[in-house]
Amino acid sequence: MNIKLKNTYKHFSGATEYYTHESKVNNATMSFAIFLPEQIKQQRLPVLYWLSGLTCTEENFMIKAGAQRVAAELGIVIVTMDTSARNMGIEGEDDNYFFGSGAGFYLNATEDKWSKNYNMYDYVSKELPELIEKNFKVNSNKSIFGHSMGGHGALITALKNPGQYKSVSAFSPIVHPSLCPWGKTIFTGYLGSDQTTWKEYDSCELIKTNTEKLPLFVDQGSDDEFLKEQLLTPELEKVCAQYNHPLTLRMQQGYDHSYYFIATFIEDHIRYHAKYLF
Amino acid sequence: MNIKLKNTYKHFSGATEYYTHESKVNNATMSFAIFLPEQIKQQRLPVLYWLSGLTCTEENFMIKAGAQRVAAELGIVIVTMDTSARNMGIEGEDDNYFFGSGAGFYLNATEDKWSKNYNMYDYVSKELPELIEKNFKVNSNKSIFGHSMGGHGALITALKNPGQYKSVSAFSPIVHPSLCPWGKTIFTGYLGSDQTTWKEYDSCELIKTNTEKLPLFVDQGSDDEFLKEQLLTPELEKVCAQYNHPLTLRMQQGYDHSYYFIATFIEDHIRYHAKYLF
Repeated sequence: MNIKLKNTYKHFSGATEYYTHESKVNNATMSFAIFLPEQIKQQRLPVLYWLSGLTCTEENFMIKAGAQRVAAELGIVIVTMDTSARNMGIEGEDDNYFFGSGAGFYLNATEDKWSKNYNMYDYVSKELPELIEKNFKVNSNKSIFGHSMGGHGALITALKNPGQYKSVSAFSPIVHPSLCPWGKTIFTGYLGSDQTTWKEYDSCELIKTNTEKLPLFVDQGSDDEFLKEQLLTPELEKVCAQYNHPLTLRMQQGYDHSYYFIATFIEDHIRYHAKYLF
Repeated sequence: MNIKLKNTYKHFSGATEYYTHESKVNNATMSFAIFLPEQIKQQRLPVLYWLSGLTCTEENFMIKAGAQRVAAELGIVIVTMDTSARNMGIEGEDDNYFFGSGAGFYLNATEDKWSKNYNMYDYVSKELPELIEKNFKVNSNKSIFGHSMGGHGALITALKNPGQYKSVSAFSPIVHPSLCPWGKTIFTGYLGSDQTTWKEYDSCELIKTNTEKLPLFVDQGSDDEFLKEQLLTPELEKVCAQYNHPLTLRMQQGYDHSYYFIATFIEDHIRYHAKYLF
């Protein structure tokens, strides 16, 4: 479980750092980034995991969201990771922005072609937290959030692991991938055509059997270009109402799917998680 | 003086917008970006101009610095611009990151090859502010700041135009380009080998004859990889002391030349300018 420091930048009195390591679950060199607030010199800190959207690497959130200012104030470690293994030499891995490289979708692939290197679910829920807890002075309090594909990833990872996360939130999540074009392509490609296997990675399906009922906090832009066809936010509202799953959904008027939207409300999300992490 | 909207993003209740227009002084299509706080619907607002460093476009600062959060709170318009004309078909314009495209250096070129399209000094000090004041609901209160090459640009533009700016500040500015490798290459290329013409665009020279004595506020990272060879910050301290020019220089321990550094202290700078803009 060795990690290799690639870059470190002093940032809000702490540091934003970039690492690579050999991932066992993905059989690949993976990249992650971590923000270490100054307070980590004095005490173990909780960790907030951010899962990014399609095409992103571990860098996008760290340079665009403006999260470190608030994390530095509160004393929260932030971890981001690349969105898939890359350059695996798999035929077609770079053909689409919504499948293959940069589109791991936070699941464990079962189709032969992808199953060796596309296991982002195990990576995010098990391997990476173990790596972080072994290599940095963090405590065991964890929360998780993300954007779009990463909003989906945060929701399913929290729903599938009761007790593991203190809180969960999402920006513009893909809430019901079994029913949207991106999700259908992705699920068919990684999991095959048997749709019963898709339910394991679909928030709207997982809500139905979830007993922990960890509250969901979701921000969604009303002018998001993917809202109607891909994100399907009203489906989440419907199923949460039906199964009494606590949901705070804020429809933010005029905002789109971009980091301009994320940056606007990131402080709300970090302060939300802080209430549960401490 | 027509401007063409390329993109608008709702951002901190206001909007970050991207435009192009035909620049007379550069004989080229130029790009700029503007953050318009929500308050502009009710009243005319002051403008803070940001000048970026080598290679940057109008976008870098808008997505990385985290400035809009504070500007939205205070009601300050922020304007950024591309760092040169691009794709002019000038031989060698793309050969170096520190000369030609993305490296206008905020001067008016006099060498034949560049003089038609490389007039960023006139662009920043005259054409762009006129364009902004004509097309947006701003008032005449202006301040200026920037980073690296843009820190140099902010300092010389303020020093050369007494009364035009309410305040000036810089991150990691190139303070004495006549004496550093980047500056020598750039000045020779755009202005020719007669070094007396270089003084017009060298902060350490301009301080000597400046009578307005607008205070300078400068943040500099102690671990900046360009500090010793290119930025020459101690030269600014020396000349300001000698000519009684007010300077607040903060040597920030452990910070480098990056946007991680800028993001850390951007709030201080915007609040500094706000004291003069209102």
